[in-house]
Amino acid sequence: MLTKSLKGRDFISLRDFSKQEIITILETALALKTDLAMGRKHKLLDGKTLFMLFFNASTRTRNSFESGIFQLGGHGNFLQPSATRLPTLEGEDVPYKTERISDVARVLSGMGDAIAIRILGDAVNWSYDKGLRIIKEFAKWATIPVINMEDNIYHPCQGMADVMTMWELFGRDLRGLKLGVTWTYSGSTKKPIAPHHDVMYAASFFGANIIYTKPPELRIDPEIEKAIKENVEANGGTYQTSDNIEDAFVDADIVYGKNHVCLDLLPPFQKEPKFDEMAKLFDKYKDWIVNEKYMKLAKSQSKYMHCLPCERGMEVTDEVMDGPQAAVWMEAENRLHAQKAIMALTM
Amino acid sequence: MLTKSLKGRDFISLRDFSKQEIITILETALALKTDLAMGRKHKLLDGKTLFMLFFNASTRTRNSFESGIFQLGGHGNFLQPSATRLPTLEGEDVPYKTERISDVARVLSGMGDAIAIRILGDAVNWSYDKGLRIIKEFAKWATIPVINMEDNIYHPCQGMADVMTMWELFGRDLRGLKLGVTWTYSGSTKKPIAPHHDVMYAASFFGANIIYTKPPELRIDPEIEKAIKENVEANGGTYQTSDNIEDAFVDADIVYGKNHVCLDLLPPFQKEPKFDEMAKLFDKYKDWIVNEKYMKLAKSQSKYMHCLPCERGMEVTDEVMDGPQAAVWMEAENRLHAQKAIMALTM
Amino acid sequence: MLTKSLKGRDFISLRDFSKQEIITILETALALKTDLAMGRKHKLLDGKTLFMLFFNASTRTRNSFESGIFQLGGHGNFLQPSATRLPTLEGEDVPYKTERISDVARVLSGMGDAIAIRILGDAVNWSYDKGLRIIKEFAKWATIPVINMEDNIYHPCQGMADVMTMWELFGRDLRGLKLGVTWTYSGSTKKPIAPHHDVMYAASFFGANIIYTKPPELRIDPEIEKAIKENVEANGGTYQTSDNIEDAFVDADIVYGKNHVCLDLLPPFQKEPKFDEMAKLFDKYKDWIVNEKYMKLAKSQSKYMHCLPCERGMEVTDEVMDGPQAAVWMEAENRLHAQKAIMALTM
Repeated sequence: MLTKSLKGRDFISLRDFSKQEIITILETALALKTDLAMGRKHKLLDGKTLFMLFFNASTRTRNSFESGIFQLGGHGNFLQPSATRLPTLEGEDVPYKTERISDVARVLSGMGDAIAIRILGDAVNWSYDKGLRIIKEFAKWATIPVINMEDNIYHPCQGMADVMTMWELFGRDLRGLKLGVTWTYSGSTKKPIAPHHDVMYAASFFGANIIYTKPPELRIDPEIEKAIKENVEANGGTYQTSDNIEDAFVDADIVYGKNHVCLDLLPPFQKEPKFDEMAKLFDKYKDWIVNEKYMKLAKSQSKYMHCLPCERGMEVTDEVMDGPQAAVWMEAENRLHAQKAIMALTM
Repeated sequence: MLTKSLKGRDFISLRDFSKQEIITILETALALKTDLAMGRKHKLLDGKTLFMLFFNASTRTRNSFESGIFQLGGHGNFLQPSATRLPTLEGEDVPYKTERISDVARVLSGMGDAIAIRILGDAVNWSYDKGLRIIKEFAKWATIPVINMEDNIYHPCQGMADVMTMWELFGRDLRGLKLGVTWTYSGSTKKPIAPHHDVMYAASFFGANIIYTKPPELRIDPEIEKAIKENVEANGGTYQTSDNIEDAFVDADIVYGKNHVCLDLLPPFQKEPKFDEMAKLFDKYKDWIVNEKYMKLAKSQSKYMHCLPCERGMEVTDEVMDGPQAAVWMEAENRLHAQKAIMALTM
Repeated sequence: MLTKSLKGRDFISLRDFSKQEIITILETALALKTDLAMGRKHKLLDGKTLFMLFFNASTRTRNSFESGIFQLGGHGNFLQPSATRLPTLEGEDVPYKTERISDVARVLSGMGDAIAIRILGDAVNWSYDKGLRIIKEFAKWATIPVINMEDNIYHPCQGMADVMTMWELFGRDLRGLKLGVTWTYSGSTKKPIAPHHDVMYAASFFGANIIYTKPPELRIDPEIEKAIKENVEANGGTYQTSDNIEDAFVDADIVYGKNHVCLDLLPPFQKEPKFDEMAKLFDKYKDWIVNEKYMKLAKSQSKYMHCLPCERGMEVTDEVMDGPQAAVWMEAENRLHAQKAIMALTM
């Protein structure tokens, strides 16, 4: 653990943090969770304000941040662009409609203590890195910490909650554990890929044997894949990919199965998002679903994870979701604890 | 009073509670009201989160719950379906648009301490029991209390505030008191009937003589009417109906006058809501209005109640609303105190 | 200072307050700012609720009030008309859509501790005094303080933050100081004039030499101009106008430059707002912009102020906004402190 290195820092990508810093967040999250279970108050951010900018709808992220800052003694301002001027990058100004991010960030810095932002998908017309650029622009000008609540590339809070869940289920050392991460079918073509990136990147610090399975036409961001491989080399464990869904399940300890978009049918690989083509592609793989048949290939004590919300009957069957192997409720709750740790350590 | 039987319970319908449990809520509400008047803090729910799901617009309910949980030391997350995925029953799933209630309820259970829900009218396409079914589905899966903030059938928080107001005005024993509950005209055909149900049901515990007047084509839910009659038999008092509006006023101590929909022109009695026909029906009864002429038929100390918002000039005249007999402001404020009691006792 | 005269008062227009009362607010704001800097808690409104009614979008006002009431130990309910019935004046009732302000004000008075309202521009179809009439109607019926968060005529919270900023920059005595207030160009024809009114009115208490420059077709409200002149006579300082933008800059200590609407092209001077004509008029004056060339005419230690949000490249250049003379960030932050003072003193 490192007791001081996170103070005042932005939390934008896990790749900005060392293994010891990530461990610090996880240990803090577990301590705060125990406190809450006992009813021990921990108003570590008494009187502090978190600005929560949501460019996209949200249930888990909104409620875990709003409850979380409150449990820490602070308050979250729930902000939607429809009720403010739209914060925009230079060159996208529209009189009386937009406000330059440089200005919004400096104004909010005078009125509160951290800025959390969710911006992805439709909110940035599927421009792959635009959400991240916007978050970084806020961080450039803000004098208070900026927290990434999900862009098209990263969902670092989810990654922390996922590994926290693995720690709780299997212990702090993931060596020898098989983590099967698979793409599954969905009737929607707008489901983010950031959770796949960050669950694998976060787990790669702790020695897990990771396998990522998906239809041959799909892939994760190659730059992130490279970072996962480097991490695995430095920390133990393995990383492989496969085009056979069964490979994610056979002897797995954890199966993380959810849909994600096809990167190659979106900008910057295409001029415009090709959602019709993506839907046709997905329809070829309707049998890519987490069901009991596949879960039987995994170890008997194995767990199923998904960041939620899920498309039942498409990504995963009701039987698995409502069955004893689902760790998804613990995983969702751990968003609360992980994010409280991030806030308590940075703000 | 019963000091322990409410802990952890859902608050969905008054019919789930015994007379002693209802007395417990009312006594608690009065004690909290005195505390507030004196400026005595009562942070009984320090650090706790209430999720407030509003599928319909709201002024009183929203502000009384949000202020109320705050006065108790907690925080209310104001949630609108437009800013989340829409929580839906099984079979109504739409990929990327909806999330199964079973999942939302379990996720929120991990992040806070109670779920309050308002869902009626347009939000359920006027399907009479759908709001209640949705609230019960939340309760089935949630591991934290679920509070009904109004569906098409029940508005139990309003019922408690109404009887609390009667207690304050006339004492805890309503025996010998005449409560005239009448339908009145409105230019809208979308005004709920739940407040009529619950004011009569709640008052029927305490010995009041209740009369419900309305045009011959209108009626309350017969199942609830039956429950009111049973309650009156068990607790004293009487229950009658009449097609003559004057009967609600003659010698009344309390007149509760407001519009409500015509049940027989809505599902399940019709395939589709027949609002045009309802408007035509209502137009026959424009003289069903609470005015000074009628109020003169009541006792000189009588009071006028309405859950609000009211349609001035249609349901009630300005003279009555702004006159000395209006108890509507006390009634509205008592929403705050009654709901604080419900939260303090269940959460 | 006057320690008691503000308790329970509405804060609607600066013109309702004496110079000593305005000094009281400013001194309180500065004391609260120092507290915050030191981390000293000041939960002066512990458990109290502020209702924040926003008929217009807002970033600064919303966040400064929501953070401010929270730092004082209270809570702000963020209310948008879309999520409630629309509060309306008598004669504008629509069944099931609106609720009379007299009723909303009395209901909220029972559930919390102050009502803050923003209503201007499109929200009142540019009827010049309608926002103010609505705020005053709330105040007439509410039994708790009503705070003006900006109407078409007044923005008193901004005025207080502006003078607080001048005090911090130049001391409590503004005698001998030149305050140049200028109209500038904007591509929008919907930018409020209230900030111009209140910065000059507030500064006129403290002896500043005020000059207001604008194209010949434009003017501020003549009634407010008269009040500024009277104030200057009573308190020292001067007030002049000019049609030459340079006059606002030459030897100025403070330049306050922003766009505002053309009053003479709006009701009550026109039947309907003439925005096309206004845009044509504004286009004649695209060179009315705060830039480095003009700022060089001012004193070397001079500061640039703007209530924000600004239209960069139209009202002011990036060089000035991001340069050392910009006092706009301090000015924005002072909204927080000034409003906390107003709340702490009135609520």
